[in-house]
Order: sequence, then C-alpha cells, then structure tokens
Amino acid sequence: MDNKVLYVESSKHTYPIIVEPESLSSLYSKIEEHSDSKASRFFIITDDTVAPLYLDIAVSSFPIKDKVDTYVIPTGEASKSLSMYEKVMTAALENKLDRKSLIIALGGGVVGDLAGFIAATYMRGIPFVQVPTTLLAHDSSVGGKVGINHPLGKNMIGAFHPPSLVIYDPKALMSLPEKEWRSGFAEVIKHGFIADESFLTWLQDKIVSFQNISMDVLTELLIRSIKVKVAVVEQDEEEKGIRAYLNFGHTLGHAIEGEAGYGQLTHGEAVAIGMEFAVRFSEKYYGHQLEADKYFNYMKDLGYSLDIPSDMDINQLIHRIKLDKKSHSSKIHFVLLQKIGSPKLVEVNENLLKAELTGKGGV
Amino acid sequence: MDNKVLYVESSKHTYPIIVEPESLSSLYSKIEEHSDSKASRFFIITDDTVAPLYLDIAVSSFPIKDKVDTYVIPTGEASKSLSMYEKVMTAALENKLDRKSLIIALGGGVVGDLAGFIAATYMRGIPFVQVPTTLLAHDSSVGGKVGINHPLGKNMIGAFHPPSLVIYDPKALMSLPEKEWRSGFAEVIKHGFIADESFLTWLQDKIVSFQNISMDVLTELLIRSIKVKVAVVEQDEEEKGIRAYLNFGHTLGHAIEGEAGYGQLTHGEAVAIGMEFAVRFSEKYYGHQLEADKYFNYMKDLGYSLDIPSDMDINQLIHRIKLDKKSHSSKIHFVLLQKIGSPKLVEVNENLLKAELTGKGGV
Repeated sequence: MDNKVLYVESSKHTYPIIVEPESLSSLYSKIEEHSDSKASRFFIITDDTVAPLYLDIAVSSFPIKDKVDTYVIPTGEASKSLSMYEKVMTAALENKLDRKSLIIALGGGVVGDLAGFIAATYMRGIPFVQVPTTLLAHDSSVGGKVGINHPLGKNMIGAFHPPSLVIYDPKALMSLPEKEWRSGFAEVIKHGFIADESFLTWLQDKIVSFQNISMDVLTELLIRSIKVKVAVVEQDEEEKGIRAYLNFGHTLGHAIEGEAGYGQLTHGEAVAIGMEFAVRFSEKYYGHQLEADKYFNYMKDLGYSLDIPSDMDINQLIHRIKLDKKSHSSKIHFVLLQKIGSPKLVEVNENLLKAELTGKGGV
Repeated sequence: MDNKVLYVESSKHTYPIIVEPESLSSLYSKIEEHSDSKASRFFIITDDTVAPLYLDIAVSSFPIKDKVDTYVIPTGEASKSLSMYEKVMTAALENKLDRKSLIIALGGGVVGDLAGFIAATYMRGIPFVQVPTTLLAHDSSVGGKVGINHPLGKNMIGAFHPPSLVIYDPKALMSLPEKEWRSGFAEVIKHGFIADESFLTWLQDKIVSFQNISMDVLTELLIRSIKVKVAVVEQDEEEKGIRAYLNFGHTLGHAIEGEAGYGQLTHGEAVAIGMEFAVRFSEKYYGHQLEADKYFNYMKDLGYSLDIPSDMDINQLIHRIKLDKKSHSSKIHFVLLQKIGSPKLVEVNENLLKAELTGKGGV
C-alpha cells in the first residue's frame, strides 16, 4: 500500500490526491502526470520551518530550474494576514507569473490557505497544487477552502478554490513534533466521530503513540481520513448544508483557540476539547449515552487534555462563538451527534449552552 | 419599452439584468422580486460622487432601515486598492455582515469592481447586486469580473464572481458629464465592431450627440449593448477563449491609459484610440479594407480623438503591452477584425507592431 490515488469531484474540476512515500522528491513528475507540467512558471510558496527541510528536494525535482521561483513566509498563523498576502502577490507579479503559471503550496495549513488564496485571486484565479507537510494539513488541503485572517476574525477573507492536485508524502510527517501530531490527529478522530466508528476502533488498535508509526499504517490512516472529508465536500463544496458537519468540535474549539491566544493551544488540541464537550452536550440534547468515553480515554492516553482551561471566561467563549462566521445573525449552531457517525446541525439556546459550559446543565 | 429584463447564465447561477427607468427608487422591491430580500443585512457600497445623488433614494426603498449599512469610498481608480479593500472589509465585519448578507454596489466600474471583490472574498463569498450609475458600467457590471489594482498592474487581484442581480436605471446616466459618456460609449461601439455592424449604423442614426438622448433610445442602446456582452460571457465566462474578443481595442488602450497616467484619459477615450489602431492593423494583417472610416468619423464628431498622443514613447507602450496580464509569457496578442463583426485573437510580431505604431508599417 505505498501508492494511493483518490479523486475529488469539485464544482470546477476533478482533482487527484496522491498519498505516497517519497512523492516529494518526484514532485515535478507527479505534476507532469496529474496536472499541468506545461505551466509557464512554477511558484513554490513555503515557510521557514519547511524550507530548510524540503524546499531543495522539491525544487530539485524540476528539470528547468529557471522556471521555478520560491517564496518563504515566516512560520505561523500570523502569516495569514493581508500584509503577507500583499507581499506574496507582489513577488508573484515581480516573478512575472501569468495566467498559465502554477502555484505550489509546500507546507502546513497556513501555507496552503495563504498560497491557495493567492492562487484564487491572482489575475482572477490560477491553478495551484497542495503539497501538505503536516498531519493537520491532510484536512485543510482537501476541499478548496482557502483564505486569510482579519484582526476581527479567522478566515474571514477567502474563497473556494479547489487545488488541481494534492501530493502528500507521508514521510514528511516524520519530522513533526508531538504537539503537531496531536493537532492533526484530532481531525483524524473527528472524521471517525462524524462518519465511521470502525475507523475509531482501527485507530485505537493501530496507533498507540505518535512514535514509530509504520509508513503503511500512516498511509492508510491518511487515506481513510481523507476519504471521509472527500465524501462530505463532494456533496457540499460551498458549505450550504452537510459540510457544516466537518465543524464538529470546532464551534467551541475555535472559541477556545482564540481565547487562549492563537498559538497557545494548537488547533487540534482546542478541537479535541470542543469534541468532548459536543459529545457531552449531544447526550444531554438527545437524552441518551453515546458511549464515547473509551475514545476520550484513548485521546487522553495520547496526551490530549480535554477540559476547558479553567482560567477561561465562559461569557467570553460564548461571545466568540456568536462572532463565528458560521453563525447566522448571532444564532448559535452546534454540530451534535445523534449517535457516533450521525451528525446533525442544531440551533442551540444560549442559556442552555451557558449552563452546560459552566457545568450546571440539567438533563 | 420602459421595462426590460435580460437573463445571464453564469457558471454559478442565472441572474437577471433589469434596465428600467426609475428602478433605483424601487431598489428593494426589485431585490425582493429577483434576488434575496430575506438577506440578514444589506451593505451598500458607493462613492462620494454617487452618494449625494442617489444613496438616499436607494436607502429609502428599504422598509427596515436598520438592516441597511452604507460605505462611501472616494471617487476614482485609486480606490481600487488593497488598502481600500481592507477598510471596506473591516466595515463589513464591524457591521456584522454574515454569509446570508447581501452587498450592493451602487456606482460605476470602480465601485462595482471593488464591492464585487469584497463580495467574492467576504467569508469566502457572499452574493452581491450591481446597481450601475454610469454608461461605462453597463459593460463592467455584467460578466462577473471583479477585482482591484496592484501598483504593478491594473486588475491583477480579483475573481470571477457573478452578481445575483443587475439593476440599471438609465435615468442615472442623465447626470453624467460628457467625458463620462464618451468613456462608456466607446464600449458600446466596441460591441458593434466585434459582433453587430447593424448596431453601429443604428447608433449613427439615433445618437448624434450625448445631449437630449430619449429614455427609450437609451434603454434600447443599453439592452442591445449588454446583449452582445452577455452572449460572449455566457460562452466563455473565465476568459479561456472568445471572451478575449471583448478586449478589442484594449491591448493598446490599456497601455495608453496607463502611460497617460490613469485619470488623464478616460478608459473609453483610450480604448477608442486602441480600436482605431486595431482596425488599421487588421487591414494590414488581413490585406483588405474594413471600410470603418465612417464609424471613426462618427466617433470624431462625438468628440473622440483617435490619435495616439504624440508625446507617448512607442517603446514604453510596447513594454506595457507585454506586461498586460492577458499576455502569456511575454507574447503579444491582439484582437483583430477579419471583418466587422468577426474578431480573431492573433499573436503578433513585436517588430511588426512597432513598425505600425511608429507609422512605418508596410503592407
């Protein structure tokens, strides 16, 4: 199982996702095989953590080096800003990219989101290739959501711009620190919760720590997790309905992430807390147990803390939830589980939510 | 003929174009009839020339005033900037627009392009309504091209984001200065040149000056001109082929406009010069006469100057033409006419172009 290709049907085109060890060193030939190697120029955008590890490997795969330009952004969420967007746009213009050029996003979610938004809006849109190098990016690199942040909210500026190709080298994940594994693995678990309980039991069986995961297991994990995402976004690319299910754990998760200060808790660590809360809230809402404790215990064994940090103000969290762009006119929506694998989008009462968050919720 | 509706089939949805005197004062009911009057909020973006004339009229049409926010940008091309984009985005967030909100672009091309790009990228895209108030905007408000400028080039940052409705009140054009009429009328003539010679003869017959045009004639002019545009963009929304025909006169026109300094010559005045040149170049290229002198004499009677300004450096113009985003890898493309109504996109030799621009071209 060292060569897997999935296909995603987007509104604009069908694109392949290749999950294959060592694919990074054959980046150009993968583009040649699955995308547009006849591009007039190639513009690789990456960050200063990924660049020293993989940029030379990626560039070396191109036969004509002077058709390849690179841009290295500072690592971290702060690079998803309008000012960084302007800098990269300027570089793209200075490098004389035209409408036949190809942008390549080499990195994690920040690089993919920023580079994808550059591609979405450069000369009204040019194609781009996602080359994720983190586990978390297995989620963000699929589905076409790209964008940047505004001081008043995350991902408030963006577009739907599906990549023309996703090339995933699982070997790149071997360089990730434990905290990054935990961040990405929360989305893997989320996919189990919303769509496939057997995936959760498979994970429990195969992944007992983030050390020494075999390349075969990692490849299968990525394929299975991506398949859940693909199935959802194919049905609802622009999040008018069921794509919202992917926000399971995220309504509270985003609020916690923001309240902690971005970068204090990883995205996945915050989402893990949000998932535990959403399951507990689901049990209250639907009036029956989901028997999810075994999965949350498993997550604790992997190092997750599932409690809302005790110093957080519940009113501030609710305020952030209401500011979320997924809320409509200040109504609060949560993705709840009727049972594991059966998500529903539910409008929840603010007082009920507050009672539950403060631990004072009745049945 | 005081009530006309055209429909445009875009890749995303079909939208109506309403050309109707007094429609501005019934803006809300038009939205109710043809678009989404159930929007959570309405955000009208306009400029400081249009605001004193029409903003109150537009706002007054809404039954619930506190669902309507407005933003007035400075008039002129300089507002199509990233910094203005950021300001309007901030206002949209502060006004708590959500994904169910509707943006309304009330003004000319600058307002439509900027407001459309805000709509294209606010929370990954929300709907917007074009309410053009200039003649030139009869062109830019249809077809879904939106965007802003970068110091290195016009319209370099943008998207394809079709409006959900275009509401055109021809009465608004009565307040336009002569220079603005000339700017917009060049695009009207362009539509005749690329698609319909009988439209050119109709114009010659009906419009002998920009004074005292009857509302019936103006409405028919708008409908006929918009129909040409609609026919082209329906076939090729994202400009992969024949949409390029709409650039007739624009390759040189943009270069002249830029070289003069934006705002010195209007867009249409520059395009008029570009069209005259493109016809002359077409005659050389195809080796036969197009018998277009009568139309250029008509344009001169309307006040157009059709000569390249004598102080312009031909090498600088060619440099600008090569920087144009429609060029691929520095090759030069022109829209030429095999005959009137039959445009072709042709790659032209730089030396040949230069010879023709300097008036030294042979046959």
